[in-house]
Amino acid sequence: MTDISFDINSLHRAYADGTHVSEIIAECYRRIEEAADPGIFLKLVDQDAAQGEAEKLGAFDPVTKPLWGIPFVVKDNIDVAGLPTSAACPAYEYDADADAFVVAQLREAGAILIGKTNLDQFATGLVGIRSPYPPPKNAIDPEIVPGGSSSGSGVAVALGLVSFSLGTDTAGSGRVPAALNNIVGLKPTLGALSASGVVPACRTLDTISIFALTVEDAYRAFQSASAYDPLDAYSRETPVNGLQEMRPGFRVGVPTVETREFFGDAVQSNSFDAALAAITALGGEIVEIDFTPFYDIANMLYEGAWVAERFTVIADLLRENPEAILPVTRAIVSKAESLSAADAFCGMYKLQELKRIIAPLINSVDIFCVPSIPTFYSLADLEEDPIGPNARLGTYTNFVNLLDLCGIAVPVTTRTDGRPGSVTLLAKAGKDAVVASLAALLHYRSGVLLGATNWTQPLPPQNNPVVSKDEICLAAVGAHMSGLPLNGELTKLGGRFLKDAKTAPIYRLYSLAGGPPYRPGLVRNKKGTMIDLEIWAIPVKEFGEFIRGIPAPLGIGTVSLSDGTAVNGFICEAAGLEGATDITNFGGWRKFLHAD
Amino acid sequence: MTDISFDINSLHRAYADGTHVSEIIAECYRRIEEAADPGIFLKLVDQDAAQGEAEKLGAFDPVTKPLWGIPFVVKDNIDVAGLPTSAACPAYEYDADADAFVVAQLREAGAILIGKTNLDQFATGLVGIRSPYPPPKNAIDPEIVPGGSSSGSGVAVALGLVSFSLGTDTAGSGRVPAALNNIVGLKPTLGALSASGVVPACRTLDTISIFALTVEDAYRAFQSASAYDPLDAYSRETPVNGLQEMRPGFRVGVPTVETREFFGDAVQSNSFDAALAAITALGGEIVEIDFTPFYDIANMLYEGAWVAERFTVIADLLRENPEAILPVTRAIVSKAESLSAADAFCGMYKLQELKRIIAPLINSVDIFCVPSIPTFYSLADLEEDPIGPNARLGTYTNFVNLLDLCGIAVPVTTRTDGRPGSVTLLAKAGKDAVVASLAALLHYRSGVLLGATNWTQPLPPQNNPVVSKDEICLAAVGAHMSGLPLNGELTKLGGRFLKDAKTAPIYRLYSLAGGPPYRPGLVRNKKGTMIDLEIWAIPVKEFGEFIRGIPAPLGIGTVSLSDGTAVNGFICEAAGLEGATDITNFGGWRKFLHAD
Repeated sequence: MTDISFDINSLHRAYADGTHVSEIIAECYRRIEEAADPGIFLKLVDQDAAQGEAEKLGAFDPVTKPLWGIPFVVKDNIDVAGLPTSAACPAYEYDADADAFVVAQLREAGAILIGKTNLDQFATGLVGIRSPYPPPKNAIDPEIVPGGSSSGSGVAVALGLVSFSLGTDTAGSGRVPAALNNIVGLKPTLGALSASGVVPACRTLDTISIFALTVEDAYRAFQSASAYDPLDAYSRETPVNGLQEMRPGFRVGVPTVETREFFGDAVQSNSFDAALAAITALGGEIVEIDFTPFYDIANMLYEGAWVAERFTVIADLLRENPEAILPVTRAIVSKAESLSAADAFCGMYKLQELKRIIAPLINSVDIFCVPSIPTFYSLADLEEDPIGPNARLGTYTNFVNLLDLCGIAVPVTTRTDGRPGSVTLLAKAGKDAVVASLAALLHYRSGVLLGATNWTQPLPPQNNPVVSKDEICLAAVGAHMSGLPLNGELTKLGGRFLKDAKTAPIYRLYSLAGGPPYRPGLVRNKKGTMIDLEIWAIPVKEFGEFIRGIPAPLGIGTVSLSDGTAVNGFICEAAGLEGATDITNFGGWRKFLHAD
Repeated sequence: MTDISFDINSLHRAYADGTHVSEIIAECYRRIEEAADPGIFLKLVDQDAAQGEAEKLGAFDPVTKPLWGIPFVVKDNIDVAGLPTSAACPAYEYDADADAFVVAQLREAGAILIGKTNLDQFATGLVGIRSPYPPPKNAIDPEIVPGGSSSGSGVAVALGLVSFSLGTDTAGSGRVPAALNNIVGLKPTLGALSASGVVPACRTLDTISIFALTVEDAYRAFQSASAYDPLDAYSRETPVNGLQEMRPGFRVGVPTVETREFFGDAVQSNSFDAALAAITALGGEIVEIDFTPFYDIANMLYEGAWVAERFTVIADLLRENPEAILPVTRAIVSKAESLSAADAFCGMYKLQELKRIIAPLINSVDIFCVPSIPTFYSLADLEEDPIGPNARLGTYTNFVNLLDLCGIAVPVTTRTDGRPGSVTLLAKAGKDAVVASLAALLHYRSGVLLGATNWTQPLPPQNNPVVSKDEICLAAVGAHMSGLPLNGELTKLGGRFLKDAKTAPIYRLYSLAGGPPYRPGLVRNKKGTMIDLEIWAIPVKEFGEFIRGIPAPLGIGTVSLSDGTAVNGFICEAAGLEGATDITNFGGWRKFLHAD
């Protein structure tokens, strides 16, 4: 028990094998005590109360409660009913009378809240030490900064105290601590996780983020937490698809060598090269992109008008009790006092203009890969200069929310000097599943231990042939199957391969007259057999476009499968069989093509 | 010739009948001279140059050039190569070396530019008299204001000097002059018309707008002008569908009686009631909505932070040469000097919050109908108070662009006091075709003369069975046809009826076993006949959702029509005919159902 991995799969296996949830909760508190770092938690839930919560879960039920019995913590800028919310500013602290929307969703899914964690005050910073409380120690190396602003949430997961945690991410606060503590940091599409009950930093750019030991765990928590919140003005309906197989040939945009920035850290540069090699080995095609416009956007975040958003949050406090705010935070946020409304709009125009320039770059790839951080900074570095290193940590994170990208910081092979390796994968809003799918593979391939623990990775990520409500299943029987001439019609619409399958034994297959492209016709017939198929998931919004290109006598109808289910698939008008050859005995189009 | 209506249909009929384009251009200049209002135009194109342009069009060709030989003018905040752009501020004037993107599109479509028109300086105002030049006279009644800011463009069309004109619309400048001059004002979806080469007012809210004598003319110009402009950061890919039939039962949101505002003008109130009765007669279902949140948004436009956008445009001039700006304009725009960046963001938060509240209201109807203006103001009223009446004119227009709606101001039955009646139809971004379709019917039904002319309306708007690139054609053969049990599946996805049709004579029709709903199966068969169909246009993005609900043995394939074309439509697997009844001899599903 005492060294059970707190990844969700391991805990759920233990529960299935008879471990009682009270044992895990007790172990959680034991580990917190053992860690003996007063900087991690600002509040702990009373252990008896947490045990009471766990008792109420009833019998182990991971189906209706995907987070059944999973301990988690939240950053102290997120409301938990009955606990005060401080944003690491005692003078700002208020009593929360309800759970934040996302906390409520997670508890509904069976997760057990353990406490609230330290942060850079008002989530302003990427170092994790801008707090009036003692800063949490970095889980890997106490000499380096823990990373922020979600410092406590990052360290708690890296030490294996809990399974996952909530941070928030405006400029990188959900990714930088992940990179510095060897864990996964999922920064979802803006609006996918409700901001109700969260202290804002920049309301137009904020999101709750999720730290976990594995990508699958982070994504599972994300799936449970994501829902449209009609009371949050910035909530957006966001597709939350299942993890998918990465078919070789996906395009990965990376900064050109000239526009990579490591501030002299050659070890980090080599680590990034190694990660790109790993992506190539997974079938990715690396596309080098001049990152200058991305950095131009990054620079806007703290130098531009958006700091005024932070100002709106603490304007009253700044006026009435400025000493209650840390000097470094005060200095940053007070800059907003000299910014005019015209400056704000000019900033938005400049952003829009840069977005216009970047749009074709974003459209030219499936995913981006950047270093999560350019280099490491020690507590001593920050002692010397509290601003510069903080700004540099955001090199690869600051532009992300301004561009409405989603992303995951994921551990890769440990650096040659023993420090954690991390890259961040990014994609367009709504593509969280794509990012998570590649991140899961990359993490597993790296073989690194989880966080600062000696736990090995659980089983490799499974291709999850689950179709989301935003997808439609298609049984492909001919030239649309993988590797065949029309397969690109599926992939260019965002289709993804789910699995091989067979029809029910009530079909005959014909090679139709005409072509190329040569096409088969699948015809229901009692004197039939099982025919090989591929099942693909196609975004339902794109399916109409696909239908347009299908010529007579083919159409899309319903195909019965050998497992007794039925999916949409290619059917053929009987009248179209004129001149066709019956190839049923081959058992499938691919076998027919490959026959001598 | 001398009284030919300048609506596009009339001109194109004249061209088809042999009228030379030079005669129309000459007539255009003759009318301008006859109008003898020095306030309309700030610049006229040299007549010989315009004739030269017309010559270059070659033979009459309304197919490749839908605006062949059609005279138009543009507001003087829109660039025309070789003419200066002033925004009605001589000190601001600059030489334009290229046509604005939209002007170039219109010329490419065959339109002939005649001149540039007066406006409220920097497009700031809704009255049309805030110009250092003499204001144009209202075309209907010289005692009332011409309306602005696109005053000259509105009056030029209302007098029949040209066929259409360009204005711009931020707060209502493309709609208020239409209401005051008895013409059509089309305010498209933001981003549908490029802003390249336009002097900004509020860059995040501006659009070019179109004035015309009829809805069809305005929409035709819109279709020619709309294209994605990769050089305009605010350009958006926008669907531009064909005009459509309004199927009875469409839902029209209107302010509740309590939240209508006419500032005591009972005649205008009655006029609005009459317009709603006309919409009901056209099959609309009136849905009363509390308009308070819409007015809350309207108030943000001039009282809130957005005035800072106007400030960014003329900040240099305000500093260096403030006297060059009209006092009223200066007073409005200078308010921005006291607004902070924090104010700007707070304004955006408030807007987002109001949008959240309004979103379900918008989703509850197909279209909105509001008065275009609450009442009329005279030149004398403005003399007395240059601010109040201007603000009140925007009661029903100010909120529209902040909410990202599209709309058309359209004349309705003349008021009992002889002044023009006008309502504005509004819908979600991208629904320009829906708005135009209802506006066209409403205008025709009103029977009013065009603008200030004695021209009657051209033929009633034709249902235009043209399918846009964003739609897919579907041949419905059974329960999905109009009035049958599954028709709602098409309409709820935004499908629209195009026409009745018949298959090629190569189909047999079967009544399938099972049901309800009872369904036919259409099977290609050489020994077949022509079967009745309905052709529907379905938004292609929704088609996948539709396909999901189609049970075996039916599917979507290709159906050959009697006119030799083919469209997507219902097909049927031959194996599914077990237990079916051949009903080919009825000639169609509806005839089968109605047979004794």
